[in-house]
Amino acid sequence: MASTELAPGNSATTAHPAGRIRVGIIGATGYVGGELIRLLAAHPAVEVVGLTGRERRGDPVESVHPHLATTELALHSELDGEVDAVFLALPHGAAAQRVPDLLAQGVTVIDQGPDFRLRDPADYPRWYGFEHPHPEVLGRAVYGLPEVHRAQLVAVGAARAAGTPALVGSPGCYPTATVLALAPLARAGIIADVVIDAKSGVSGAGREAKAEMLYAEVNESVKAYGVFSHRHTAEIEQELAALAAGTPAADAARGLDFLPHLIPMTRGILSAGHVRPTRPIAQGELDALYAEAYDDEPFVTVVASSPATGHVLGSNHARVFARVDPRSGRILVIGVIDNLVKGAAGQGIQAFNLVFGLAETAGLEALPLAP
Amino acid sequence: MASTELAPGNSATTAHPAGRIRVGIIGATGYVGGELIRLLAAHPAVEVVGLTGRERRGDPVESVHPHLATTELALHSELDGEVDAVFLALPHGAAAQRVPDLLAQGVTVIDQGPDFRLRDPADYPRWYGFEHPHPEVLGRAVYGLPEVHRAQLVAVGAARAAGTPALVGSPGCYPTATVLALAPLARAGIIADVVIDAKSGVSGAGREAKAEMLYAEVNESVKAYGVFSHRHTAEIEQELAALAAGTPAADAARGLDFLPHLIPMTRGILSAGHVRPTRPIAQGELDALYAEAYDDEPFVTVVASSPATGHVLGSNHARVFARVDPRSGRILVIGVIDNLVKGAAGQGIQAFNLVFGLAETAGLEALPLAP
Amino acid sequence: MASTELAPGNSATTAHPAGRIRVGIIGATGYVGGELIRLLAAHPAVEVVGLTGRERRGDPVESVHPHLATTELALHSELDGEVDAVFLALPHGAAAQRVPDLLAQGVTVIDQGPDFRLRDPADYPRWYGFEHPHPEVLGRAVYGLPEVHRAQLVAVGAARAAGTPALVGSPGCYPTATVLALAPLARAGIIADVVIDAKSGVSGAGREAKAEMLYAEVNESVKAYGVFSHRHTAEIEQELAALAAGTPAADAARGLDFLPHLIPMTRGILSAGHVRPTRPIAQGELDALYAEAYDDEPFVTVVASSPATGHVLGSNHARVFARVDPRSGRILVIGVIDNLVKGAAGQGIQAFNLVFGLAETAGLEALPLAP
Amino acid sequence: MASTELAPGNSATTAHPAGRIRVGIIGATGYVGGELIRLLAAHPAVEVVGLTGRERRGDPVESVHPHLATTELALHSELDGEVDAVFLALPHGAAAQRVPDLLAQGVTVIDQGPDFRLRDPADYPRWYGFEHPHPEVLGRAVYGLPEVHRAQLVAVGAARAAGTPALVGSPGCYPTATVLALAPLARAGIIADVVIDAKSGVSGAGREAKAEMLYAEVNESVKAYGVFSHRHTAEIEQELAALAAGTPAADAARGLDFLPHLIPMTRGILSAGHVRPTRPIAQGELDALYAEAYDDEPFVTVVASSPATGHVLGSNHARVFARVDPRSGRILVIGVIDNLVKGAAGQGIQAFNLVFGLAETAGLEALPLAP
Repeated sequence: MASTELAPGNSATTAHPAGRIRVGIIGATGYVGGELIRLLAAHPAVEVVGLTGRERRGDPVESVHPHLATTELALHSELDGEVDAVFLALPHGAAAQRVPDLLAQGVTVIDQGPDFRLRDPADYPRWYGFEHPHPEVLGRAVYGLPEVHRAQLVAVGAARAAGTPALVGSPGCYPTATVLALAPLARAGIIADVVIDAKSGVSGAGREAKAEMLYAEVNESVKAYGVFSHRHTAEIEQELAALAAGTPAADAARGLDFLPHLIPMTRGILSAGHVRPTRPIAQGELDALYAEAYDDEPFVTVVASSPATGHVLGSNHARVFARVDPRSGRILVIGVIDNLVKGAAGQGIQAFNLVFGLAETAGLEALPLAP
Repeated sequence: MASTELAPGNSATTAHPAGRIRVGIIGATGYVGGELIRLLAAHPAVEVVGLTGRERRGDPVESVHPHLATTELALHSELDGEVDAVFLALPHGAAAQRVPDLLAQGVTVIDQGPDFRLRDPADYPRWYGFEHPHPEVLGRAVYGLPEVHRAQLVAVGAARAAGTPALVGSPGCYPTATVLALAPLARAGIIADVVIDAKSGVSGAGREAKAEMLYAEVNESVKAYGVFSHRHTAEIEQELAALAAGTPAADAARGLDFLPHLIPMTRGILSAGHVRPTRPIAQGELDALYAEAYDDEPFVTVVASSPATGHVLGSNHARVFARVDPRSGRILVIGVIDNLVKGAAGQGIQAFNLVFGLAETAGLEALPLAP
Repeated sequence: MASTELAPGNSATTAHPAGRIRVGIIGATGYVGGELIRLLAAHPAVEVVGLTGRERRGDPVESVHPHLATTELALHSELDGEVDAVFLALPHGAAAQRVPDLLAQGVTVIDQGPDFRLRDPADYPRWYGFEHPHPEVLGRAVYGLPEVHRAQLVAVGAARAAGTPALVGSPGCYPTATVLALAPLARAGIIADVVIDAKSGVSGAGREAKAEMLYAEVNESVKAYGVFSHRHTAEIEQELAALAAGTPAADAARGLDFLPHLIPMTRGILSAGHVRPTRPIAQGELDALYAEAYDDEPFVTVVASSPATGHVLGSNHARVFARVDPRSGRILVIGVIDNLVKGAAGQGIQAFNLVFGLAETAGLEALPLAP
Repeated sequence: MASTELAPGNSATTAHPAGRIRVGIIGATGYVGGELIRLLAAHPAVEVVGLTGRERRGDPVESVHPHLATTELALHSELDGEVDAVFLALPHGAAAQRVPDLLAQGVTVIDQGPDFRLRDPADYPRWYGFEHPHPEVLGRAVYGLPEVHRAQLVAVGAARAAGTPALVGSPGCYPTATVLALAPLARAGIIADVVIDAKSGVSGAGREAKAEMLYAEVNESVKAYGVFSHRHTAEIEQELAALAAGTPAADAARGLDFLPHLIPMTRGILSAGHVRPTRPIAQGELDALYAEAYDDEPFVTVVASSPATGHVLGSNHARVFARVDPRSGRILVIGVIDNLVKGAAGQGIQAFNLVFGLAETAGLEALPLAP
């Protein structure tokens, strides 16, 4: 069959009146890379002009991603040709090295890894075990969760249109599900004590060959991992603390417990937050807080019954649920996403759309896939 | 969030210059119904004007299909309002009763069930256990496999534009994978002896509560079923015999063995055909036959290494593979599809597109989802 | 092949020097019933003399449990012939009706359902929605968790040998994993605030045909259920409160939050307890508490790294893990079991062994199955 | 908890009145090694005296096999101390190097790999890509399928008792399921044309970290592999040809097509044989052939409805099914096993039992696990 055509278009973005936005993907061989290709190849305002992977020399994309054969794209060791933006899907530490040069070349960067998510440089040695090589760039990065930082994304987008390339640190998968679920409570200053118990499919662990990720090891088993030490804790605390700044909940956001579990499925994260509120709260007030936060959001739906990850599979959608337990007085919140879309590639594209003045949902319109 | 907008169209004229085609889905509560909604709600030329389910009275779609909440559609017990076309996703026998009335009302029908797939009325009592109530309509139906019957679909489309509504019997899931894999051989008259050994995910069994389809029953197990009696055998034989008509293979298409297996996955069919050819054939000749058949097809890709169902998940794509065994002289062919898309809803929409003069790929552009 | 022989034996138990203990299983068609057959058919001191299922008339066991064909057992609508003990695997409410008669006939009863687990009759209408028909019998029942109530089980066993049949209410699956994980803390009076976040395979939901338990619904998805209302909450609170009686933690055991999740696997429960201790505690003290509780237990192993349900699959073993978070001061405990063995049939047999004066591990020696 | 006790035996004499048979497992870290430990640790006549793994220095078994923690065994780089028998679970080619020395030391060897399965030395370079280093030993090895070669196993057992250590080449997983399913037909000389289409869980691929065996790659997908080249073809042809020697089917056993598929499950193989018989055959004759072959077999059950791998999970049992298609005249046979038990470790132990004059079922009594 013929390839999905990536005609040199005639799109109508702010910055590219005469054509599509030229996008490169650095680190296109992993699962996030594959999702970026899948979504960007069909994005109405984008032309994918380059994909890179280590030691790739024009390999057809299906040699790495058989499902993408019909895109007729190829992988090279480096991007060649001009790009307006790059998505980085690299191991932590690797993006930190490359971003300053890309920015210097005028290229807007969406980093899918953690290297530009944390504000405090000290968090890198503490949680990731490396000194950030370019702490001076951290302040320039926007944490790319549009539901929380949309104004900032639009602002760096305006600067980009004026010639200053933007840098987005696209959120981690667990923080996305968790912060979406807890943000209305944090903003309202209601959280006094927070335990987060999350469950993830295994695609979040990446595509590297590891014996503990073999099918036979993962199937028919569940376990907790990263006990008291999962790196995403830093992001979750940073964002909740920022949301709760100036409220009685400001301190509670620090010192939370985050326990992720690996479950036998490929995609999906469910994050359950068990919260002791600072004061008694009625279900009606809770409902109002969540409605206010999300009624106008294109990708977040507040639901009245317990949501499943299967309700958002393959899409950029999230579902959020919040309930007060009349017996204990605690609040339960649940957030579900597809970790590779809203938790990675889709969210990066959502931020990219804002930075480039596109419709926020461009290229992300696909409904979830079920069953 | 706001719903996926279904612009209040202004369709209606035969050619629909001013608006979208008004489509209803009868039997929208099962898995094929859900897929039709998912795909048609995003179809650029369609307005979904009605969904039906038994005893539904305006129920929001998420009460049945939680993943489709953002479409903001609802289910009713009957279609009300005018439609240009309906998709039927009903148990076998039920569509046969309703189609004549729909046609009489000028509505084009895409039937996703088996009631209009078989040419010979005698095949219904033989394979399905019921006498067809309207055998006179069978001759009017087109078997909706575009790769084999495109000209017919276009022809009934032309008649439709001239006022005669069309009737499409959309192929079964196993026949789709199997006929696509074998068609070039059948057409060339090369098949002398055919064994088809197929493997399917369980979504093909539908959404009805049956103990043997419980997760705990299906998981970690594989079994053959429908031994020597699976109803899709009739369709496969009908289509292969028609393709091979006038060749030495004409008889071989009858009396084939078809053995389907249920495997622990939700979506996907892999059909392996083990063929004794009528004469020795070289790999190069085989490659040429398949290239000729599929090089211009938008949804069928001939691949050089063994294809997986995971390569087409969630999409209307198929992969086909054919190899001669130098040791035995037999030919092995493999076809893989997503049973709910190319094997059901997607294929129905592909035929619908042809019948309504739309781009064949309209609404079906999504790339497969992996991992 | 020949059947697994259930010779009328010549075993050597305390109470039955001349033969095997004659055991019946009432409700043998479900998953717990199947596990009871699997384990009891190979039990060295047991003769399975009867299996019942509704409207069964001598049906071979493989018509219901194909994996047990080689036992050559059959199912009848009622037990006929004398039995020393029965295991009941019935829906809640059904056992409560039958047990008084069985006891009156001198038959020892191991009830695998909830009808004799709760001490307070008021808990039945509150959590299960029915008035207990025989509240006077509740006080006679022993909660069959040997690691907590071994002395009681031995005591009713002595009474049984003296002529008074015993009644065991075999614990629920979630309470087993949860109470084993929390018992040392509760007994030491250390728990001040308890959140339990549990994950279960679907076999716990039983074998009844329900659409939401279909493979296609469960696979590739996780969701919480029974939010604030799961019936096992009552059992967990009852047991923790009893363990903590007289300590500062006595009240904390009431008003806990229990959130179960359904995950895509067949067997296994992981229960994570997030506990705010009444006072700061060091890891060493925690380790000592758990070592004291479990070092002599044949089926509970305290582990130093996060346990997986796959480590106990198909066996009566449990793993328990406890850690203090130095950052937050909270304690995390995790318990894992196979819900159908240690969480149901195996645990019932363990209690049965104690009641009949057998080796506690008799018939339960199988090691876990992995991968 | 206490370890599973392995009494400090004092084995060695033919009848072992004074102690257990001392067994070592070389290559105990993989899946077959783990199964050998699981089964042999509970074997009533065996003392596991040594486990080896590369660069292991007394590592507790749970560092490799967490499910076996309670055995309290350890792994070393070499066996030390005397053994009566060793099981080898090594990559192909590695066993061939070590076996002559072991035999010279008087140790009976059960090789779980392919190095001593094939009679014709030329099959090793042809199918496995290496020259067998000790072709002179091949003639001494027995193909360890007791249902076909029991007399030979007993004979080498008698020789072993007289001082000549035995060598067993334990069959591959696919050949076990396939030969059991086809043996009665081959022996009766009825097979004229054979296509074998098999489906396997992934544990057969072993425990080595390979990207294509990651959970996310295997889940929700099925594919054929080893097209026309799977190494087990050689074993299947060898055994069927031997069974059919002197019959009209002798040649048909050569040049068969064997197509294995990988399906998303951990354990289990289903092998479907599609056979064109040499002459028409009635179902009754077929039934008689299978009854004659298997009625006295402890581990093979002939079933009347299509068997599932889930019916034998975790056990040494096999199910076999054979049917004539009245439409086509072809015969369909199906065999199902657990690839790690009857297809590997369990079958090795079954042969070991015969060689050591034990009950053939010793240590293999566990019933299948379902669901």
